[in-house]
Amino acid sequence: MDENEKLGILAIGHGSKLPYNKEVVIDIANRIAERHEDVVVKAGFMEKNEPTVEEALQSFEGTGVSKIAAVPVFLASGVHITQDIPEILGLDPETKKGRIKLNGSEISIVYGNPLGSDELLAELVYNRACEALD
Amino acid sequence: MDENEKLGILAIGHGSKLPYNKEVVIDIANRIAERHEDVVVKAGFMEKNEPTVEEALQSFEGTGVSKIAAVPVFLASGVHITQDIPEILGLDPETKKGRIKLNGSEISIVYGNPLGSDELLAELVYNRACEALD
Repeated sequence: MDENEKLGILAIGHGSKLPYNKEVVIDIANRIAERHEDVVVKAGFMEKNEPTVEEALQSFEGTGVSKIAAVPVFLASGVHITQDIPEILGLDPETKKGRIKLNGSEISIVYGNPLGSDELLAELVYNRACEALD
Repeated sequence: MDENEKLGILAIGHGSKLPYNKEVVIDIANRIAERHEDVVVKAGFMEKNEPTVEEALQSFEGTGVSKIAAVPVFLASGVHITQDIPEILGLDPETKKGRIKLNGSEISIVYGNPLGSDELLAELVYNRACEALD
C-alpha cells in the first residue's frame, strides 16, 4: 500500500439463522480494527444476517478508504467463494478484481482467499485442544 | 497434561463433496503434528469424507495416547457442534466428556471449542487482506 492510500477491509461471513457465525465474524472485524487503527474494517454477510455484503460495501462511503480488500471469513473454498461472493461484489470473474463508486469516485476492490490452511489455524486448533484439557 | 500422559488430538472437519474442506482439515492436522512431535494427531470427518470421525477415533489404537482432545475445525458453533459431533463421539450431553476403549483400556475424550473468535483468526484475516493487495 502506498502511504497516501487508506485500506478498507470487508470481512464477509456466510450468515446463519443462528447467531454464532455473525458473532464470530463481527468480533474478528473488531479485533482487526483494534489492532490496525489505520484500517477501516467492516463486516457483511452473504445471507440471513445484516448488514448484507452490499450494505457493508456502501458503509465505506465517507471513510476515505482508497482501496478495499474483501476477505471471506470461511474455512475453505467452495461455490460461495468462487462464484456467489464475487458476483455480489461485482468482481471480474477472471481477475477477481472490481471497482466501486464511493463518494463519487471509483475505488478498487481486491478479493482475498478464505482462511484455508495456515500455521495460525494449526496453532488455534492446538490451543483449543489444550483448553479442553484444563 | 501429566508427564506420563500422551495426548491425541482429533481434528474434526465437516466434510464436503468438494475437496477443499478435507484438504484444509488434513493440512491443519499435519501442521499440528509437525509442530508438536509428542502429540498424535488425526483428522476425521462428520460427513461425506473419510476417515469418518469413528474411524479416526479407532486409528488412535496402538499409538499409546492416554487422552484424546477432539476439536471441531468449524468456524462457529451450531447444531453440529453442540449435538451431532458429541453424539458421534459418544460424549455425555452435559459434560461433553466421554471414554473410549483402545487397546483394551479406557481412555478419556475431552471436547474442544470450535475456532470461534480469536486474535489468531483476526491476524489471519488481516494477512489474507494484505496478500490480496500484493
